[in-house]
Amino acid sequence: MPRQFPKVTLSEAEEETQLLNDLVTKLKYMALKRSYLGYIYMSLSCSLQITVEDYEQAAKSLFKALLIREKYSKLAYHRFCRTTAQFLRNAENMRWSEDDEVLPGRMCTFCITLKKEKNNSLYITITPLWPSDICPCPTDGEDPYRMENIPENLNYELRMKDGIVHVYDNAETLRANKPHDLPYPDLETFAIDLSHVLAMIADGPTKTYCHRRLNFLCSKFYLHEMLNEMAELKELKSVPHRDFYNVRKVDTHIHAAACMSQKHLLTFIQKTYETDADRVVLEKAGQKMTLQQVFHSLNKDPYDLTVDSLDVHAGRQTFHRFDKFNSKYNPVGASELREIFLKTDNLIDGEYFARIIKEVAHDLEESKYQHAEPRLSIYGRSPDEWDSLSKWFIQHKVHSPNMRWIIQVPRIYDIFKSRKLVPNFAKMLENVFLPLFEATVNPQDHKELHVFLKYVSGFDSVDDESKHSDHMFSFRSPKPEQWTGDNNPPYSYYLFHMYANIMVLNNLRKERGLSTFQFRPHCGEAGSITHLVSAFLTADNISHGLNLKKSPVLQYLYYLAQVPIAMSPLSNNSLFLEYSKNPLREFLHKGLCVSLSTDDPMQFHYTKEPLMEEYAIAAQLWKLSTCDVCEIARNSVLQSGLSHQEKKHFLGVNYPKDGPGGNDIRRTNVAQIRMAYRHETLCNELSFIVDAVKSETMAS
Amino acid sequence: MPRQFPKVTLSEAEEETQLLNDLVTKLKYMALKRSYLGYIYMSLSCSLQITVEDYEQAAKSLFKALLIREKYSKLAYHRFCRTTAQFLRNAENMRWSEDDEVLPGRMCTFCITLKKEKNNSLYITITPLWPSDICPCPTDGEDPYRMENIPENLNYELRMKDGIVHVYDNAETLRANKPHDLPYPDLETFAIDLSHVLAMIADGPTKTYCHRRLNFLCSKFYLHEMLNEMAELKELKSVPHRDFYNVRKVDTHIHAAACMSQKHLLTFIQKTYETDADRVVLEKAGQKMTLQQVFHSLNKDPYDLTVDSLDVHAGRQTFHRFDKFNSKYNPVGASELREIFLKTDNLIDGEYFARIIKEVAHDLEESKYQHAEPRLSIYGRSPDEWDSLSKWFIQHKVHSPNMRWIIQVPRIYDIFKSRKLVPNFAKMLENVFLPLFEATVNPQDHKELHVFLKYVSGFDSVDDESKHSDHMFSFRSPKPEQWTGDNNPPYSYYLFHMYANIMVLNNLRKERGLSTFQFRPHCGEAGSITHLVSAFLTADNISHGLNLKKSPVLQYLYYLAQVPIAMSPLSNNSLFLEYSKNPLREFLHKGLCVSLSTDDPMQFHYTKEPLMEEYAIAAQLWKLSTCDVCEIARNSVLQSGLSHQEKKHFLGVNYPKDGPGGNDIRRTNVAQIRMAYRHETLCNELSFIVDAVKSETMAS
Repeated sequence: MPRQFPKVTLSEAEEETQLLNDLVTKLKYMALKRSYLGYIYMSLSCSLQITVEDYEQAAKSLFKALLIREKYSKLAYHRFCRTTAQFLRNAENMRWSEDDEVLPGRMCTFCITLKKEKNNSLYITITPLWPSDICPCPTDGEDPYRMENIPENLNYELRMKDGIVHVYDNAETLRANKPHDLPYPDLETFAIDLSHVLAMIADGPTKTYCHRRLNFLCSKFYLHEMLNEMAELKELKSVPHRDFYNVRKVDTHIHAAACMSQKHLLTFIQKTYETDADRVVLEKAGQKMTLQQVFHSLNKDPYDLTVDSLDVHAGRQTFHRFDKFNSKYNPVGASELREIFLKTDNLIDGEYFARIIKEVAHDLEESKYQHAEPRLSIYGRSPDEWDSLSKWFIQHKVHSPNMRWIIQVPRIYDIFKSRKLVPNFAKMLENVFLPLFEATVNPQDHKELHVFLKYVSGFDSVDDESKHSDHMFSFRSPKPEQWTGDNNPPYSYYLFHMYANIMVLNNLRKERGLSTFQFRPHCGEAGSITHLVSAFLTADNISHGLNLKKSPVLQYLYYLAQVPIAMSPLSNNSLFLEYSKNPLREFLHKGLCVSLSTDDPMQFHYTKEPLMEEYAIAAQLWKLSTCDVCEIARNSVLQSGLSHQEKKHFLGVNYPKDGPGGNDIRRTNVAQIRMAYRHETLCNELSFIVDAVKSETMAS
Repeated sequence: MPRQFPKVTLSEAEEETQLLNDLVTKLKYMALKRSYLGYIYMSLSCSLQITVEDYEQAAKSLFKALLIREKYSKLAYHRFCRTTAQFLRNAENMRWSEDDEVLPGRMCTFCITLKKEKNNSLYITITPLWPSDICPCPTDGEDPYRMENIPENLNYELRMKDGIVHVYDNAETLRANKPHDLPYPDLETFAIDLSHVLAMIADGPTKTYCHRRLNFLCSKFYLHEMLNEMAELKELKSVPHRDFYNVRKVDTHIHAAACMSQKHLLTFIQKTYETDADRVVLEKAGQKMTLQQVFHSLNKDPYDLTVDSLDVHAGRQTFHRFDKFNSKYNPVGASELREIFLKTDNLIDGEYFARIIKEVAHDLEESKYQHAEPRLSIYGRSPDEWDSLSKWFIQHKVHSPNMRWIIQVPRIYDIFKSRKLVPNFAKMLENVFLPLFEATVNPQDHKELHVFLKYVSGFDSVDDESKHSDHMFSFRSPKPEQWTGDNNPPYSYYLFHMYANIMVLNNLRKERGLSTFQFRPHCGEAGSITHLVSAFLTADNISHGLNLKKSPVLQYLYYLAQVPIAMSPLSNNSLFLEYSKNPLREFLHKGLCVSLSTDDPMQFHYTKEPLMEEYAIAAQLWKLSTCDVCEIARNSVLQSGLSHQEKKHFLGVNYPKDGPGGNDIRRTNVAQIRMAYRHETLCNELSFIVDAVKSETMAS
């Protein structure tokens, strides 16, 4: 049951800011008497300053939007904030139960195997299976690449229909068009839900309401900081053996092809050349070339190469030039070196790329407390990509306990189409998703992919968001099979179809007791704010989210639903938004669930520890307190695809609980005062909405 | 001879900015035809926009101020910008000659020693001595602590007089009050010189002139950047094997007691406790205590210590609170731990402090390209401090090829006086300087100090500049012997007396062929801008210089004389000035000789590479180009106390020459276009002043 809060209604004529100022002196005195100011904040926060009608309309809209997100989250086994869910149930006069929650590692089943030893004695092994444990980690000493206990072939039939893979029990049900009992998303419903939220972000009263609430959240945090900063610090000082340096941090958004620093890449190329100059590494125009020949053709001596001539670092030239940024991925401006060193499926089977990634992983393991979730690409050019990628992963033993993998799908149908690699958009989706369904239905024939998928925690959708699309996505949009033109589909179209396939896939995998995937697209880095609406429905969490700056309604919704946002202010600083204008600090203060990530250390960072550099700069520039940075680090673990077991280990056994009860300060180094503040503040905001909805229900 | 520049006079009615805008298009076209835009800049820069009378008055004042600085620089064997000196000679219709210049390692003498080997054969060893080579580095394989070839005792007599050590050839000349022939500074002259510059920084026409020139320098650099950025980058890309990561960088301002990161100190304390828990490390109230007892008395378990409980990092609490900042030097707020771990003269002879400094030095040596100039304290409480410090240095073998030492003297006479440790200010000066004179006159009796001084490159004056002093320094001020009150002397009083002693000492040491010292005070971090006037006369170079923001005349003078400034924006950000308001970027653009330094990594930095963190943040936040950061790194080497040999090695053999001729791009990675721009711009500014002075001379 959500907590009940005492209410004090203040005269509407009083201006909120005025009110705050007047109360500061009073509060300071009261603060001396109590360390915990929940009640006082409550009293302040009930002056809404809009008419009752507007308030009710806004609350109703927000309530509906939250229900919509909850629906899509549940369908796809995405996570949804527990506190928010509890308030939603309360508004509907229903009981919330833990069983409603999609939470990794709750439903535990067991796998029993019989094993005959050499001495003919029979052993029974009982292995617990954590079906929803998104990305289980092999236990110590276990071979992470072992191909045992692989589930049987189900002999299901698979067909792509309207861009979504459908599953049939057998050829007969396929003929009868009776798909296996899984929830298949319905474009029409989705389009209606989307348009509801789209309409709402432009609705006057809702905008005013959200704007005011957000302003209030800001002022309230400022007050909290003034009054409790020292108390928080005192709490942290008394925590033994835990500080910012040894709390777990996850780099929640990083691209594998740029996960090393520029200096690291340079040294790696030079080191490789020393031993492998005569190795054939590239085939160009039918001709095989050694590393030496490649450098000769580029007119470069690897020894003389420098960070300057390598030229993979973003500079002033890349600001608002995503194209230039993309071309920086080519060392010395040559696609040959990218092909040799930064690709998985080249002439040397991606050996160098695997090696350099393993060096990065080694550094993370050394640091012990740093983790990363690198993005590897699946393009959808051909159906072989998955086999090739998983073969690369297994062959080079790329797994690291400090890394979880995310698959990024670039939104570049138009390029493939113009090169006649795919006939329509459905084919691209099929290339991306059908192999995953096949590996789920029949892992026996896709053992490598089956094993690789254990370490994949989700999907990302990537490309330049600022590119404009002429098409407006609606339920009248052509189906992917009919999308045969040269134009690229719009962002929302991509997102819906990726979500739809991931959702069906997750349900199928859940049925089989296999891991599920989170959808974690890039969103709100640039371009239209409608992208953030699509992701609000379809994404477990997002990267960037800068454009939440521009829409108070969306920002408030992301707050209420506690949608995690992986922010990369140094990346933004080189591409889209100056550091000083980055909203991270403001989002953090308001209570949005933000984490810090590097995006592309090769392009943006200078030191040997890019994630620490990212934290250091944020801490310095925004004068973040230890509690602030530890809160960000905690958010990063929550947001990540780390397993339930790992999260329990890193954050405390009760981590799925919101508020101080879910926080183990000895592990997170986040003050309980802060946790209480965040929880009460969220409850307070949600209670306004629930009250409005309930009073309306009673009236009707 | 200075270069002659063509002049074009533009109508005064045209506004400079308007003019600049109009010319951009034209310039861009012309830029295509030539990589080098000197001439065009010249044409622009001749529109001064003030009346001829004001211009002449301003130029005359600036000229005089430069002559004053040159005089004091020469007297103390400080460096003075060569180009500026050349223009000054030109104005006086004199010939400039290289011999006028105080430059390390020019005057080379030889030391010839005879050595008898075991087989009775006689060897003659000729060792070159670099008398002005401020800090000679032992050659490979040479024992840096060896005590051979120590000069003889000169049996001079030494007396402190008016706070300045005077040297007498023998007891007789002492009685006759005929000091040895060295230049002794004259307080009256100094006070007059000081007041001239003080008057001038408030002079209307001079202020206008300097303000306009500085604005112009800004706009001009902006133009330069727009037009030449890509050309500079192209130059750098073509330099083999040299980039920002392997150009030499000197951390020109760092305090030894805070030269390690907070995490490093924490780990060091924990590691030490593991082995040394039972070692007696402290004597408190007559009682000897083991490390374990110390921690017990503090109620702390070293294993549970964290960065938070250590509490040595500056935070929001230190902003404008130098007192709080100072107390952060006490780990866990306990002076005991500071005494044990961060002092040279404690019960364990500073063993732990030496060890942790050597760990920091080891990291620098590993990095190869990073150097540091840590400050060690001499307080002037007692005359034994020098012996104790040099014993510590030799005993623990603290020398590192990547470190040069600077002695910091805190301005805390008032504290010593109130504790009755010194009777007057002269005694404090005597404690600081007399031992150095003694070691210079009679190194045989002060062998350890003699050896230690080889690695000391200068003196720093440190404390909170924002403390106000009631006394106004003038030639009527009481002499140091008469300064018996409890009040602290003002900043200028400290600076003059430190300068005076260093000056006499340098002349004495020069006579003996020994190394000389640079005076490198903290200056302009806070407090009155008059501090910057004192340092303009007395300092070789300064740390901070923030307050140059507030005085256009001083800023322009520091530019014209190219006084090096070690800036620490992260330190300022925690203490006196927000990062975004730091003038470093602006100073760099205008052409002031600025370097980057960390000040106190323990208090301000987060990563394992504090100097790289400092550079990274500056580069990210101010979007500095590679050429910019390499220029800063080059400045840091120039500013440092590294030897002539080392500077030749790090910057190129012609480094004392200004302009592109002095730059070896293969070592510095600074574009020649940039060097040419800087040189021509400085020449142009100087030529205005010389022209005015010359035309006046002709007229009279």
